[in-house]
Amino acid sequence: MGDELKTVKIGLLGFGVVGQGVWKNIEQNRSALETRLGVELNINKIVVRNLNRERLISVPETILTTNANEVLEDDSIDIICELIGGTDEALTYTEEALKRGKIVVSANKALICDHGESLFELARQHGGHYFYEASVAGGIPIIKTMREALIANRFSLIFGILNGTSNYILTRMEREGLSFEETLGDARKLGYVEADESLDLDGIDAAHKLVILNYLAHGIWVNLKDIICEGIRSISKEDIEIARQLGYKIKLIGVIARDFSHNSVSVRLHPALIAKTETLAEVNEVYNGVSVTGDVVGTTVLIGRGAGQDATSSSVISDIADAVSLLKGEASTGRHTSVDPKACPDEITLELSPPDRLEGRYYFRFHVKDEEGVLAEISNIFAKHHISFATVNQKELSDNSALIMVTTHKSSEVSVLAACEAVKQLGSFMADPVYLRIFNPEDYSA
Amino acid sequence: MGDELKTVKIGLLGFGVVGQGVWKNIEQNRSALETRLGVELNINKIVVRNLNRERLISVPETILTTNANEVLEDDSIDIICELIGGTDEALTYTEEALKRGKIVVSANKALICDHGESLFELARQHGGHYFYEASVAGGIPIIKTMREALIANRFSLIFGILNGTSNYILTRMEREGLSFEETLGDARKLGYVEADESLDLDGIDAAHKLVILNYLAHGIWVNLKDIICEGIRSISKEDIEIARQLGYKIKLIGVIARDFSHNSVSVRLHPALIAKTETLAEVNEVYNGVSVTGDVVGTTVLIGRGAGQDATSSSVISDIADAVSLLKGEASTGRHTSVDPKACPDEITLELSPPDRLEGRYYFRFHVKDEEGVLAEISNIFAKHHISFATVNQKELSDNSALIMVTTHKSSEVSVLAACEAVKQLGSFMADPVYLRIFNPEDYSA
Repeated sequence: MGDELKTVKIGLLGFGVVGQGVWKNIEQNRSALETRLGVELNINKIVVRNLNRERLISVPETILTTNANEVLEDDSIDIICELIGGTDEALTYTEEALKRGKIVVSANKALICDHGESLFELARQHGGHYFYEASVAGGIPIIKTMREALIANRFSLIFGILNGTSNYILTRMEREGLSFEETLGDARKLGYVEADESLDLDGIDAAHKLVILNYLAHGIWVNLKDIICEGIRSISKEDIEIARQLGYKIKLIGVIARDFSHNSVSVRLHPALIAKTETLAEVNEVYNGVSVTGDVVGTTVLIGRGAGQDATSSSVISDIADAVSLLKGEASTGRHTSVDPKACPDEITLELSPPDRLEGRYYFRFHVKDEEGVLAEISNIFAKHHISFATVNQKELSDNSALIMVTTHKSSEVSVLAACEAVKQLGSFMADPVYLRIFNPEDYSA
Repeated sequence: MGDELKTVKIGLLGFGVVGQGVWKNIEQNRSALETRLGVELNINKIVVRNLNRERLISVPETILTTNANEVLEDDSIDIICELIGGTDEALTYTEEALKRGKIVVSANKALICDHGESLFELARQHGGHYFYEASVAGGIPIIKTMREALIANRFSLIFGILNGTSNYILTRMEREGLSFEETLGDARKLGYVEADESLDLDGIDAAHKLVILNYLAHGIWVNLKDIICEGIRSISKEDIEIARQLGYKIKLIGVIARDFSHNSVSVRLHPALIAKTETLAEVNEVYNGVSVTGDVVGTTVLIGRGAGQDATSSSVISDIADAVSLLKGEASTGRHTSVDPKACPDEITLELSPPDRLEGRYYFRFHVKDEEGVLAEISNIFAKHHISFATVNQKELSDNSALIMVTTHKSSEVSVLAACEAVKQLGSFMADPVYLRIFNPEDYSA
């Protein structure tokens, strides 16, 4: 059976940064790759919007087309790579391909986050396959690791840095004492920020990936609107400096914390203070990192390039390789090698833990008029909400105002929000209070 | 085809720490695991030396046997796990199983290092399969990551901390300022040191794993006796302290550095000074970590528990899961999912780079009589060998002797060895000079 397969035909939908990377890197390592796989790889059709656009990678004109049906309807094409991005055409084409029982390889985190549930269902119904390693954390093999290498595990905690752009901004703010705005300007110049800046700066891109990881780990789809999703716009250089003094770094992290005793899972994406001694605290610049705690293996951390043409195409090509294995043999249909991370028995009733059930330590920044008694007033309000302070730092500013930065002992998110609202009623504030969560993975040890 | 497979039968050879871990963890997560795999897992025979030995894990008496043939000759058994260890019986049984075309899962690094070449050949000849994720770095999925996830890559540099015991000793020496001997005592009490202590303390265990990783990355087997393999016995607390002052940590690392222009590869295992800012410098205690640089993906780092019952059995179970996929479908025969990491075309002539071709920066410790002019004499000898000093630290000891600790600019290993020999001829030495390599991954960027 496997012996007959000599050439695998691949069609690309889209030939932008990632598509050109896939082409370039298959060419670069063709001999190694074909030896390892035992087949020839042939990209024989590429669907583009504009045939005449100048591209850094040049390919034979005859394989370019503007008609997606030349890929979707060509039964000789074994693997279709959807590298268009977005959720419009990409959705239509992916649905069409999966309805035809095709193998689809995707790097499209937004599409899978929004439509994964129906797309995996389509694949299952029609015998298609949907591979998506490149959709989360670029070149880091987190999908394969969780699905295959850690298959013996149930996952109590997954947390990670999943957006390179925001990590780049936070790293430079920390290293150079720059403000968010100053660093953002450089990130834009370097082309690190998506056209829709909100994806990077408001945490949405990372949240897309988090939703996919949660599905993979726990078999349920959560809706982006039901989870905490906060970006890095409110982080100031003072926050980073005080965090540093207290032994923390500020990172934008995604957290998936499973509570086995209540059969619930907390999924959230927000900036947090994490101890400097955590491995992920040293994941800097555009790198991503994911920490996975399984009940058998313990904690495993993966760090690597989370985006970019080459890292992403490395993952797309690994999915192509897995698809080749599938073509050479026969599909396995479990969560393991194929399409559908089936829910485990107890996951059928698994609930998303509501944000207001969160507890932990918090950091606050209050920008107040430099008047007598302000700190006392704030302290009183917090005490009424049963929040006690662990550390207090005050910094005088030149305009007769002051920053008061506080960390708390363990408190509930509900109390924190209520105290914040109450504090805002005081007349002494120059700006709304800012709060950040302090994340300690040890709070989640099984 | 896949639909017919309902139960997968597994035989265990050996029921020690790892074997009992495999049993325990399959039981613990049976429902999740079987849902994910779509089959039932049935361990229906376990070969032990002594039927009556007390074990922490109790299993039905009927499945225990002292006769290995009850597993090897039972055609109804789909997967055989060799968890005996050592290279005697384990070799005989593995050969027998592979000759029968069986799927063998192994955690046995020594066996694969010494006999991998013939065992993989046997598997290929007879249609057997040999899985070995658990043989390298315990719970870290480094085999799957390199073989499958990073299949698009050629590997310019792999380096890692591959032995938990020596890392535990170095970590405690560093944190508590203890000597090697003091820490070793604790490590023994905790059961961290192998019965044959040389495996841990002289780097042999880590070198076994390194040889396997090199085969996986570059398709060639190197012989342990042809590579540098040095352990941690010579490391003193003064070395660690001076390293710290200079911005380094001392770690026992394995290095696989491919030189594509000369088609050679340097494979070596030794303690080294690495910059504190390296991710692996913060891999502490019994944790392992591996950094893999591929020409497409860039650098990816994996960190996790490198040994222990649970972490190792997590990897054994992931191999069982891959074997189930294989049983459900048809074997793929490339490097990718199966047995045989075939050499790529240019690897057929790949050469092991001899140790004397090494270059880099070095650290020296000289224990000398506290006499006038000793440092000058040493400096002169080093200058004659074209080795120039970058830093010098001298520490007076209470017995009228002194430690002189020196780092050098880039030098060749040949010069270093020659200078060491020449220096020994000076009458002023209390002990032979000790040298350590300074490892900087940036020296190996493609």
